[in-house]
Amino acid sequence: MIVVLKPEISKKDEAAVLKEIRKLGYRPHVMRGIERVVIGAIGDERTHQSLETLASWPQVERVIPVQKRFKLVSREGQKNNSVITVRGNPIGGKKFQVMAGPCSVENESQLLATAHAVKKAGATILRGGAFKPRTSPYEFQGLGEKGLKLLAKARRETGLAIITELLSEQHTKMVAEYTDIIQIGARNSQNFQLLISAAKTGKPILLKRGLSMKIEEWLLAGEYVLSNNNPNLIFCERGIRTFESYTRNTLDLSAIPIIKNESHCPIVIDPSQGSGRADLVTSLCHGAAAMGADGLLIEVHPNPAEAWSDGGQQLTLDGFARLMESLHPFIAAAARE
Amino acid sequence: MIVVLKPEISKKDEAAVLKEIRKLGYRPHVMRGIERVVIGAIGDERTHQSLETLASWPQVERVIPVQKRFKLVSREGQKNNSVITVRGNPIGGKKFQVMAGPCSVENESQLLATAHAVKKAGATILRGGAFKPRTSPYEFQGLGEKGLKLLAKARRETGLAIITELLSEQHTKMVAEYTDIIQIGARNSQNFQLLISAAKTGKPILLKRGLSMKIEEWLLAGEYVLSNNNPNLIFCERGIRTFESYTRNTLDLSAIPIIKNESHCPIVIDPSQGSGRADLVTSLCHGAAAMGADGLLIEVHPNPAEAWSDGGQQLTLDGFARLMESLHPFIAAAARE
Amino acid sequence: MIVVLKPEISKKDEAAVLKEIRKLGYRPHVMRGIERVVIGAIGDERTHQSLETLASWPQVERVIPVQKRFKLVSREGQKNNSVITVRGNPIGGKKFQVMAGPCSVENESQLLATAHAVKKAGATILRGGAFKPRTSPYEFQGLGEKGLKLLAKARRETGLAIITELLSEQHTKMVAEYTDIIQIGARNSQNFQLLISAAKTGKPILLKRGLSMKIEEWLLAGEYVLSNNNPNLIFCERGIRTFESYTRNTLDLSAIPIIKNESHCPIVIDPSQGSGRADLVTSLCHGAAAMGADGLLIEVHPNPAEAWSDGGQQLTLDGFARLMESLHPFIAAAARE
Amino acid sequence: MIVVLKPEISKKDEAAVLKEIRKLGYRPHVMRGIERVVIGAIGDERTHQSLETLASWPQVERVIPVQKRFKLVSREGQKNNSVITVRGNPIGGKKFQVMAGPCSVENESQLLATAHAVKKAGATILRGGAFKPRTSPYEFQGLGEKGLKLLAKARRETGLAIITELLSEQHTKMVAEYTDIIQIGARNSQNFQLLISAAKTGKPILLKRGLSMKIEEWLLAGEYVLSNNNPNLIFCERGIRTFESYTRNTLDLSAIPIIKNESHCPIVIDPSQGSGRADLVTSLCHGAAAMGADGLLIEVHPNPAEAWSDGGQQLTLDGFARLMESLHPFIAAAARE
Repeated sequence: MIVVLKPEISKKDEAAVLKEIRKLGYRPHVMRGIERVVIGAIGDERTHQSLETLASWPQVERVIPVQKRFKLVSREGQKNNSVITVRGNPIGGKKFQVMAGPCSVENESQLLATAHAVKKAGATILRGGAFKPRTSPYEFQGLGEKGLKLLAKARRETGLAIITELLSEQHTKMVAEYTDIIQIGARNSQNFQLLISAAKTGKPILLKRGLSMKIEEWLLAGEYVLSNNNPNLIFCERGIRTFESYTRNTLDLSAIPIIKNESHCPIVIDPSQGSGRADLVTSLCHGAAAMGADGLLIEVHPNPAEAWSDGGQQLTLDGFARLMESLHPFIAAAARE
Repeated sequence: MIVVLKPEISKKDEAAVLKEIRKLGYRPHVMRGIERVVIGAIGDERTHQSLETLASWPQVERVIPVQKRFKLVSREGQKNNSVITVRGNPIGGKKFQVMAGPCSVENESQLLATAHAVKKAGATILRGGAFKPRTSPYEFQGLGEKGLKLLAKARRETGLAIITELLSEQHTKMVAEYTDIIQIGARNSQNFQLLISAAKTGKPILLKRGLSMKIEEWLLAGEYVLSNNNPNLIFCERGIRTFESYTRNTLDLSAIPIIKNESHCPIVIDPSQGSGRADLVTSLCHGAAAMGADGLLIEVHPNPAEAWSDGGQQLTLDGFARLMESLHPFIAAAARE
Repeated sequence: MIVVLKPEISKKDEAAVLKEIRKLGYRPHVMRGIERVVIGAIGDERTHQSLETLASWPQVERVIPVQKRFKLVSREGQKNNSVITVRGNPIGGKKFQVMAGPCSVENESQLLATAHAVKKAGATILRGGAFKPRTSPYEFQGLGEKGLKLLAKARRETGLAIITELLSEQHTKMVAEYTDIIQIGARNSQNFQLLISAAKTGKPILLKRGLSMKIEEWLLAGEYVLSNNNPNLIFCERGIRTFESYTRNTLDLSAIPIIKNESHCPIVIDPSQGSGRADLVTSLCHGAAAMGADGLLIEVHPNPAEAWSDGGQQLTLDGFARLMESLHPFIAAAARE
Repeated sequence: MIVVLKPEISKKDEAAVLKEIRKLGYRPHVMRGIERVVIGAIGDERTHQSLETLASWPQVERVIPVQKRFKLVSREGQKNNSVITVRGNPIGGKKFQVMAGPCSVENESQLLATAHAVKKAGATILRGGAFKPRTSPYEFQGLGEKGLKLLAKARRETGLAIITELLSEQHTKMVAEYTDIIQIGARNSQNFQLLISAAKTGKPILLKRGLSMKIEEWLLAGEYVLSNNNPNLIFCERGIRTFESYTRNTLDLSAIPIIKNESHCPIVIDPSQGSGRADLVTSLCHGAAAMGADGLLIEVHPNPAEAWSDGGQQLTLDGFARLMESLHPFIAAAARE
């Protein structure tokens, strides 16, 4: 920690700060600058009591943390990329993975038609919401366990692995029984009890970035998974909330090289939520592949105009097949398969 | 709903849209403008299948909802202000209420000292976190049930009512047994399962605004409480996330007149989270009282510099007493008591 | 400056950083922490070449400035509040000042009717745009010099001082001839050439906060005025751009205590631009007065529904009179007149 | 325009709105919905007086524009892509163009070394700031005309075309004499007088997106160029301001397909300003090329650590050469040259 004192404070006020720093278990190191005294407080910021509270003292101008707060998810903690294998499909390795399917599971024919089509086009993992977090209580909330059973049926029929969202600690056991990957949605990205509960199942966790989550906070939310003994963490960028209203969210593709720099965990991109507009999805997928993402999570529906949720951002089955076709040169350019 | 078609589309494409509108249960009403055709789709947007999915059709430029999506929390639904009474203290009526206490419950002496001091200064409700949502898994996570027991003890000794945060559906029953008001924090403001679980206890719910929550989304989250048969909802503005870094969050005081316009539910302001700086709290409290807030939620600690969480934003006991003193003329100016 | 090195770098890489720090005129001070080496670079950050470029070196993790970058506008530079007197009206002193008038000057009868009405209600300064920055080139761009002449006429008839916006260096001389205060709008808040040109007239400058301006940047923009030998600077908060769409902008009232802490210059609040909604203006004015603002800038129009610009946010003449009446107790509570 | 009335208003209040709509030159078209009356106001929104002021009437809930406000920059106005040729280099056509050079022109050797290196690596246009908009008045403000002369010399020696920023209407004539493309920076993106002044030179204009500019506002700022008889407009995305602090700005790559949908003008990407971190530039360039950008604007410096501005985001000469090498497969994948 660096503690910056206000200009022109008394020796007594300075001594009080030094005393407190020692009391909290740090070793203070004083630097006298032109205008201000700056104190380096040497010690492990993660295990000691936080010095940040010193910011409330009248003689202190600010307190600046130096250490990174995340450890297990960090690239410093593990040099090699983590590869997470889901029913034989490695995520984070050389192969680029596509997860696709409807926003919500609606019925058997909708799901199976989509599953067969996305498999044929090259996807390896089927997405589909059985429990849906909806802004309004009057909107469709998902089929629940019935939806999970349909996902399992689609897996049996196609061999695709399955990813679905977990909304509640009450459902953790049930969802884990059916799914191959547990998705934690943007609205629950700092629902730490849910994260811990999901982590404890041992299943791979796909952690979406929250709507206004800083990358440091996202890494720390991931730290909740790894520190609960589950190394199978996948980050998923799905757009952040900004002032722009042309798109539903602003997809932050710079998150790809940043997560690759800071962490060993894989990162996939969700361009459907990330833009809210089907007409932008293809271009965003090209960008994501080019920038080194490990995969994509894409919403696909046999008839988007009659979808029970988020129709405006779902691709048709044909549109998805064309997208997959168009992706090849970009995946090759990024030296992936 | 208003459906705006793209310029120069064919009659056939237009007819397809009209057919779909009828199929979804709306009555279409066509207006031919200078450049575009605009269709009014008449029907109840909340009960019908959503037309928003039409936005995915190539001939449609945009779909604009007309109706408000919230109903039970709306001022149209109830003209008079709701008044929620907590151990004899009415919130939302003529009396201005102050809730105060430490960020986290740390131990008996810290809590009791604070409780006696805030009561003496005029607060009627004691706040204190027993379960703490922390950005990092390595930070203090709260005393849990031991903290709840200390809050109950402080209530017995001082007569103050109690408010504390609920983090997990697994704790709902336990927290509801001890507390008078259940607080739902900013990070869980769209954790709808938690909202439903809290609502079902029948206890008053204080719903904090999420870090990047639009006011419409906040009202809809409140709708989850009222539509689960709990009319005792209190909104709490606690700052939104913006680009400004001088403060931890940007306190949006315009939320006070907006909530008062749109809803009958009370609103209180949390200037401690809302700024993250103890030196700004007093001024923000003056503004909140002047603008018609129903109360305040303030962090107070006997020794902020040694607090186990968020020390930089907690007032000292003396600072809180001075603040309460300074509030009187502003409460009077706003015609409150 | 604080220079944080990456963990586990070689002695040679560390030595290169130390050499560069010395070369740039700073004295390095090394602190060896648990994981990282941190270097304090002692020297005046404002006059030396910036060390921030060290951030591009591979062995450097980050560079953290310690000094504040503003000087002349800072409270440290001048302890007492600046009071700027405009035609006998002191801004920044004990008296609370209200500036009011139409968004755009449209014609003589509109302006004079407004001027007489706002004077009668207690305003001391008349606002009115003669040059209008409009998002679209097809919108009304203001009457230009004709508008300035009408403002001058209104001043002669009512004795009110005048404030109007300067858009272009080409107009500086002309605008300065007519107006008492030069307004720099939000879109030009970092148009530094315009700021310098306005400052050199010696006229008081009202500097609006830019739509996405951090407070530090705002203070530095003000520094352009003071460092060009013009001490007559007034800050004006007018809302920042956020994700919220209920209001046009999010009025950041916390800017009042922050500017009062950091600077000796006065601050006024523009609730009309700050919310974009006439129905919120009164409540925001109460908050601004309570929080210690030095005055208000309010849009008033005889017939807002037929205004040539921004009708939705302008008060009627009657509405303004009622607002002024309602303000008294809040001004008194804030110990102002 | 669509005018939504409040629920349960009187016939008289409704009639007053209809009368006003007619008075402003629109033809009203009434739709009676379940709860509300909605009025379509038919007419050209761009040439008529704006109806948006109706939003200030008490019986009106909101007013929704239907038409797009931009015309000349729109894809509807011109179906084919505009191609702008600068000294023989077409921008917006099949060939992908790279503009590169130092943030600021510092001296002859720095500029010439950079110019030769970027040319050798494949760039066709040299960037370099002679007039610099700096947040603080105490920072280096550029060499002015001396810098322009150095740019012209570099052009003579290398054959590269030149792009440099225009900051002030006072400099328009001088800058236009030297440069091939006039750059309008993010801070001046809504300095409409500067835009008009630059447009009138007839030179190609590169218009950077403002820090908090919505895409609609950016298109409208471009409309100021085209409506002043200058068809040579290039949009440049350079990152928007968000809450994220890991990067200096959040580069919004979705702007590429959006501008391509909405406009016929070319778009280039500035990953240096867009991230503020040299270590992210290469990945962002890959994404931009893959997503269909027409080119790049990249900061390159012989010795970033000693740059007079923004050292942390400038590539070394070697780094730039490696980047250019790595770009080829992505440009090819996007079917460009």
